[in-house]
Amino acid sequence: MSSDEKRILTGDRPTGKLHLGHYVGSLQNRIDLQDEYDTFIIIADVQALTTNFDNPSKIRKDVKQVALDYLAAGIDPDKATIFVQSLVPEIAELTIFYSMLVTMNQLERNPTIKAEADQYDYKDMTYGFIGYPVSQAADITFCRANLVPVGEDQLPHIEQTRKIVRKFNNLYGEVFPVPEPKISDFPRLMGLDGKAKMSKSLNNAIFLADSEEEVKSKVMTAVTDPGRIRATDPGNPDICTVFHYHDAFNTEEVDEVETNCRQGTIGCVDCKGKLAKKINKFLDPMRERREKYLDKPELIREILLSGTEKAKSEGEETMKKVREVMKIDYFKGKSI
Amino acid sequence: MSSDEKRILTGDRPTGKLHLGHYVGSLQNRIDLQDEYDTFIIIADVQALTTNFDNPSKIRKDVKQVALDYLAAGIDPDKATIFVQSLVPEIAELTIFYSMLVTMNQLERNPTIKAEADQYDYKDMTYGFIGYPVSQAADITFCRANLVPVGEDQLPHIEQTRKIVRKFNNLYGEVFPVPEPKISDFPRLMGLDGKAKMSKSLNNAIFLADSEEEVKSKVMTAVTDPGRIRATDPGNPDICTVFHYHDAFNTEEVDEVETNCRQGTIGCVDCKGKLAKKINKFLDPMRERREKYLDKPELIREILLSGTEKAKSEGEETMKKVREVMKIDYFKGKSI
Repeated sequence: MSSDEKRILTGDRPTGKLHLGHYVGSLQNRIDLQDEYDTFIIIADVQALTTNFDNPSKIRKDVKQVALDYLAAGIDPDKATIFVQSLVPEIAELTIFYSMLVTMNQLERNPTIKAEADQYDYKDMTYGFIGYPVSQAADITFCRANLVPVGEDQLPHIEQTRKIVRKFNNLYGEVFPVPEPKISDFPRLMGLDGKAKMSKSLNNAIFLADSEEEVKSKVMTAVTDPGRIRATDPGNPDICTVFHYHDAFNTEEVDEVETNCRQGTIGCVDCKGKLAKKINKFLDPMRERREKYLDKPELIREILLSGTEKAKSEGEETMKKVREVMKIDYFKGKSI
Repeated sequence: MSSDEKRILTGDRPTGKLHLGHYVGSLQNRIDLQDEYDTFIIIADVQALTTNFDNPSKIRKDVKQVALDYLAAGIDPDKATIFVQSLVPEIAELTIFYSMLVTMNQLERNPTIKAEADQYDYKDMTYGFIGYPVSQAADITFCRANLVPVGEDQLPHIEQTRKIVRKFNNLYGEVFPVPEPKISDFPRLMGLDGKAKMSKSLNNAIFLADSEEEVKSKVMTAVTDPGRIRATDPGNPDICTVFHYHDAFNTEEVDEVETNCRQGTIGCVDCKGKLAKKINKFLDPMRERREKYLDKPELIREILLSGTEKAKSEGEETMKKVREVMKIDYFKGKSI
C-alpha cells in the first residue's frame, strides 16, 4: 500500500446467505472500491455472537457462506483482504482499551442501539450488546482504516468511533487516522412481497446463490400493482416490485418496460419473465465463480487464512504503536 | 502441575508501592499458598487503566514496583507465576466472549461496583469500569484457576465469575472449573493515624520498601491512647495503633506489652521503639532480597517475561479449547 492509498474497512456479520439487497446496498459498492482503495473486509463473527451467542455452530456455517458469497459476487482476493474477526485478537485488545474511553451514557444514548434493542425485544441487554459500537471502533481502527462505507443507520457508530479515536490520540499520542464515513447513496432494495426491505428473515429475498429456476419461480411470486387485473389494463409501475427490480437490474429496458406497463401493452407474466432472465444473466458470472470455488473448497480456506494473516499482521503493527504510546511496551523499552 | 494440584489466581492492580497492610491482608497468605498450590499472580495493569486511563506512564512505573515488592516480600518465582495482564491477549479475547453472557442489570446491581463508583465520585461510569467484573472473570479463568483468595468485598465479583463460567460451560461445553473463593480471614491493618485501613492515599502507611530510619520515624508518629499523658499512666491498648501493630508483628512480646501498657510500666516512646525494631527485623530479609534484585534489574525483567510467557501459553491452551467448543476453530476443523 502506498502511503497515500486510503484504506477502507467494511464487512458483515455472518448471519446467513447474501441476497440482491446486499448486492445493491453494499457489495456492488465494495467491488467498485476495491480497485481504488486498500480494502479490508471483516467477517464479524464475534459481533454476530452478540445476538447468536447461544448458537455458534450457525455462525460457523455462515462464515463460510458469506466468504463464498463475497468471492462469487466479485470481491477479488488479490485486491481486497477478507478476514475473520475472531482470529484477530488485537481487535479484542483494542476493544478493552477503548472501553475506558467511552461512558455508559454515550452508549445508552446511541439511537441505533436503542432501535435494535427494540427490534430484538431486549428487556435486559447484555454487556456485549450495548458495547458493540466499542468493538466496532476496534474493527475499524485495528488496521488504521481511513474510510468506512456505511448506511445512514450506522452513522452514530462511526461518530462513536471518531470520538474514541480523537480521545485516544489526544491522551496517548497519534496512532489512528480519524475515520470518515463514506455514505452509500444506493437505495434499499424492496422485498419480493413489496415490503420496504429485502431480508432473509422476512422470507422475501432472492439470494445470490439461488439457481436459475429458483429465481424464475421467486420472480413469479413478486407483488405487482394490485389494481391491474388483465394484461391489457394500464399498470402503475411506481407501486410494482417487478418494476423496482427492472430499475435496478435492467437499466437498458427499464424505460420501455415503464411505457409498456403504463399503456397496458405488456402483461405482468411477460414482464416478470423478462426480469427473471435479466436477473439470471446478472447472476450467471457469480454462479460460474461460485462453481469454481465449490470445486476447490481449499481455495476459500486459503483465501480466508491468508487474509486473516494479513489482517493480524496489521493488528500487530497497530498494537505495537498502541503499547508504545501508552508506554506499556514493558519488554521493549529500556526498563521493564 | 499434577492433575490434582489446584491452581490459584490472585494479584493486584499496579497502583503504587505495597505496604504492611497488603502484607498482612494478602501477601503473607500468598507466600504460604505458593508451596501448596500452583499459583498465578496477575499484575492487572489493564484493570488499573479503568481508573488511570489518563496516566499510563504511572502504571508502567507501578508494574515494576509491584513486581519488586512481590519478590522482596518472598514470592518465589520458581513456585509462583508472576505475569503482566496486558501482555496476555487471551484475557481480552475471553472478556469479549464473556460480555455476551452478562446482562447490564447484573453489572448495575453489583454492590462493589456501586460502592467504588461512589468512592471515585463517578457520575458517568465508563463502559470499561462498569464491566471490570467481566474482565476479572477472564483474569481468573484464562488459566483455568480453581481458587481465588479474596476479601469479603470481592465476593460479588467471584459470584459473577461463577455465573459466567456456568453459563459458558452449559452453552458451549465444559472448559472451565467453576472457581471457588478462598476467603482470607486476616484482619485489616490500621493506618498509622488510627484510621481503619492502611492506605497509600491516606498517607498512613509503612511501605515494604521503607528504610530502617523511615520505619522508626513513622512509628514515632503512630497514634496511641490519647488519654495517656505520662509514661506511667495506665494505657488502653485496645485503642492504640502501636499495640495493634505489636499484635501483628511482635507475637512473642505482645502479651507482655499489653500488661506493661495497662499497668503503666512501659512508656509509649519505649513501646514504639520496641515496635520499630520488630518491624525492621521483619522487613530486613525483604530488604536483602530487594537489594539483590535492584543490583540485577535484568532479573525482574526476566522473571516477568518468563512468567508472562507461561501465562500466555496457558491462555493459548484455554483459547484453543474455547474455540473448539464454540466451534469457531475455523482453520483447525475439517471445513473452513
